[in-house]
Amino acid sequence: MATSSLALRAVPGLPMVAPGDDLAQILAVGMGRAGIRPADGDVLVIAQKIVSKAEGRIVDIETVTPSARAVALGGEIGKDPRIVEVILGEAVRVVRSRPNLLIVEHRRGWVMANAGVDQSNVGGTGKLLLLPQDPDASAERLRVALSARFGVRLGVVINDSFGRAWRRGTAGIAIGSAGLPALVDLRGQADLFGRILEVSIIGFADEIAAAASLLMGQAAEGQPAVLVSGLRWSAPAGTAADLVRPASEDLFR
Amino acid sequence: MATSSLALRAVPGLPMVAPGDDLAQILAVGMGRAGIRPADGDVLVIAQKIVSKAEGRIVDIETVTPSARAVALGGEIGKDPRIVEVILGEAVRVVRSRPNLLIVEHRRGWVMANAGVDQSNVGGTGKLLLLPQDPDASAERLRVALSARFGVRLGVVINDSFGRAWRRGTAGIAIGSAGLPALVDLRGQADLFGRILEVSIIGFADEIAAAASLLMGQAAEGQPAVLVSGLRWSAPAGTAADLVRPASEDLFR
Repeated sequence: MATSSLALRAVPGLPMVAPGDDLAQILAVGMGRAGIRPADGDVLVIAQKIVSKAEGRIVDIETVTPSARAVALGGEIGKDPRIVEVILGEAVRVVRSRPNLLIVEHRRGWVMANAGVDQSNVGGTGKLLLLPQDPDASAERLRVALSARFGVRLGVVINDSFGRAWRRGTAGIAIGSAGLPALVDLRGQADLFGRILEVSIIGFADEIAAAASLLMGQAAEGQPAVLVSGLRWSAPAGTAADLVRPASEDLFR
Repeated sequence: MATSSLALRAVPGLPMVAPGDDLAQILAVGMGRAGIRPADGDVLVIAQKIVSKAEGRIVDIETVTPSARAVALGGEIGKDPRIVEVILGEAVRVVRSRPNLLIVEHRRGWVMANAGVDQSNVGGTGKLLLLPQDPDASAERLRVALSARFGVRLGVVINDSFGRAWRRGTAGIAIGSAGLPALVDLRGQADLFGRILEVSIIGFADEIAAAASLLMGQAAEGQPAVLVSGLRWSAPAGTAADLVRPASEDLFR
């Protein structure tokens, strides 16, 4: 991480992504057209939405039959029981509920609002967009395809905007990653005065995800892919699953 | 936020900062020497540690007499009661306690480990570094001084690495800011398909803080100031206090 500058470039002009699209191909064409050539060690950050769309993670709300539990919970919080049904299907536990809001533990361990089930940006009413089935696997597939395409060692992060305990506003975090460490452990390194840093494990992929979010926007100007250049690391590659704090270690659920 | 690239540059070769130092002067000289000239709308992110040092927020542990409460709590969690005393002096509430760890609500509202009281990077054993007394005010002073010095409209963020609920690893967040919006509210903007985004308030200054953290490191290679260029915003300037979720809205304390 001893580098002195970073450059982030959004990939411009990407087309709408639809189920079944070859996302690696779309990204490679978009980068090529914009003259963006990744170098060894660059990290491509990709918005969850286009990964989910390419993977067809879309549910037509008209096809959903809510369970008794979803009907009861939907009535309680004032949310369409069919949406609640889809959220519960993605979750292992309801952590908190409030009017129109369910904070759940997603089956992949993220504590998050509505299990990431999104009604916006899907195109057409009554469509719900779910998170990728396995975002680390998605990141790895994209890493392999794009590294081969450009002949470089590329890292890939799939990011999403998450709400946070104690803080207002969302921040980008990594829900999938490949080809880079998700956590960087500085324990055992000496600080400026030669003391040993006691608690210094950095959420490296999350910080990369947040940085890229600054260029992505969420509204009409959406730029769902950002290349980050200038990062350095010495830790071995991991996956974004490393960033999930197990319930057994967690003090806040 | 509709911009297509960002550049982050660490200010190299900054000297050790000591209590009473003119931090704006130190930063201006460092930037000048490195040929870093800020432009209108650039944001300088400054590590909390050097702000705290310049402001003399250092406590010599030998001068601390622990209260009965600090002695009891220190015994309970196995932490020096004098450090516990300093932590409690910065806090309004203990949220969780674990061996050698207190998660508290800092008097400025942050829910954080050990109230930000830091034993590393202070130089000399038995010295504790506290967070700035009022980081938004510190950011505003630095903004005014550096904007005048360079003749540009500069934003300033003071960042620190925070642990998080549900996630492993720290991420940089903004504890002070001036000259930029801390939160950007996209509610009411249309998404790609003309729907209105329902819940989209972005922790803008936190994402900037996290991005800059990628260059700062925490160990011997510390680079405590990073200039971020290329950000755009239309919201009015706020302060990092906007990012603190009031206890009344919070579901997790």
